This record gives sequence, structure tokens and C-alpha cells, in this order.
Amino acid sequence: MPVTELLPLTDVTACCAPLTREPLGAADAEALAKTLKALADPARLRLISMVAAHDGHEACVCDLIEPLGLSQPTVSHHLKILVDAGLLSRDKRGVWAYYALVPGALDAVAAVFATV
Amino acid sequence: MPVTELLPLTDVTACCAPLTREPLGAADAEALAKTLKALADPARLRLISMVAAHDGHEACVCDLIEPLGLSQPTVSHHLKILVDAGLLSRDKRGVWAYYALVPGALDAVAAVFATV
Repeated sequence: MPVTELLPLTDVTACCAPLTREPLGAADAEALAKTLKALADPARLRLISMVAAHDGHEACVCDLIEPLGLSQPTVSHHLKILVDAGLLSRDKRGVWAYYALVPGALDAVAAVFATV
Repeated sequence: MPVTELLPLTDVTACCAPLTREPLGAADAEALAKTLKALADPARLRLISMVAAHDGHEACVCDLIEPLGLSQPTVSHHLKILVDAGLLSRDKRGVWAYYALVPGALDAVAAVFATV
């Protein structure tokens, strides 16, 4: 199993204070920008929302390909970026991989941008 | 005044339902990805947080250059991207431009990612 499946390259839940509370430092800005780059793609946003809409916030990759209208390698590429960013986790069961929201990851992004 | 200062190219406050409520449609995913691309840069995140930390969520460009350690043309380039994305507004007063958070824009981003 690649190490990126065990240790996200960035940990959004450890970053950052709300943007409106205090100016963001250089290191936090780099980390947050990496997470946002992982999210800033239409296919990846749709994948996250499809996973989130499934029961238990988990979905088989076999259920994600047809609704997106992309090839399986392309979908797997996008899913790997989301796993590396610490937004999704991956669990291989039998022939299929299952992807789940990492608890707290999307809320950590939300907390950075919330002003109220 | 360029039309982009009056009409943001994207309007994040009109997009989207929370990601965990329902699968994101293709058009909403494109719009949200554009907003996130504008945010997904360390210098632009720091600019937003510096503007947000100022009194009234507004700052003179003259106060944004030195803390970032970037040239004025580079800072102006990043600020234009944030204005075009509908995240900041720009007001020229005398020799300086003042940038302010667009009310509701960051909260709209937060609302998309909030799961609770």
C-alpha cells in the first residue's frame, strides 16, 4: 500500500485559523493552498459530493464512474489526488476500492472560510 | 472602470448547495472550481486574510505589499484575480486602491463545505 494512503500529504484538519481572525502565515497559506488545489477541479468536486451523498459517506469506485462520464483511469487519478490531500480515505475490499470522506476534513475547510 | 469590477466573473454566493446534501451538478461544479482556483494560491490566501483582518474588512493596497514581500505588480495581479472571482471588491480613492471582502462571499464558500 503506498504510504500516501496512510499519511495524507497535507492535513487540512491541522490547518488553519479562520482567515478573518488573523493574517495567515506563510506555512499555513502553503498548506491550505495545496488542499484547495486538490478541491479546485469540477470532476473532483463532483466525486466528493457523490461520496458524501452515499450512505455512511462512503462509495464504491464502481458507482462513481458512470455518473461522471469519465474513464476509470481518469476517475482513479482524481480520487488519488483527493486521498493524497487527506480529504478521502481508500479501502480495498475484494475487487473494488471504497472511498469515504475523512471525518472533519470538509468541516476544517469550511471553518477556515466562515466569517460568522 | 473594467466591467470585471462591477460584475464578478463568477458569483460564489449563487453557488452551490452543501456538497454533502446532494451530488453537485456539472455547471455548479465548474463555477465552484473557478472560485476555488482563485483561492488556491498562498499569496492570494494571505491577501484575503490580511484584508479580512483590517478594520471594516477593507485595506489599502499600500498596506498589503510590504507584509507579503512581493512586488506591487505581482500583488496587483493576485488582487485582480480575487476581484474577478467576486471575493474582493476594489475602490479607487485618490492615488491608492482599497480592497474589501465582498459580503457573504467567504461564508458562501464555507457553506458549501460544511457538513454539520
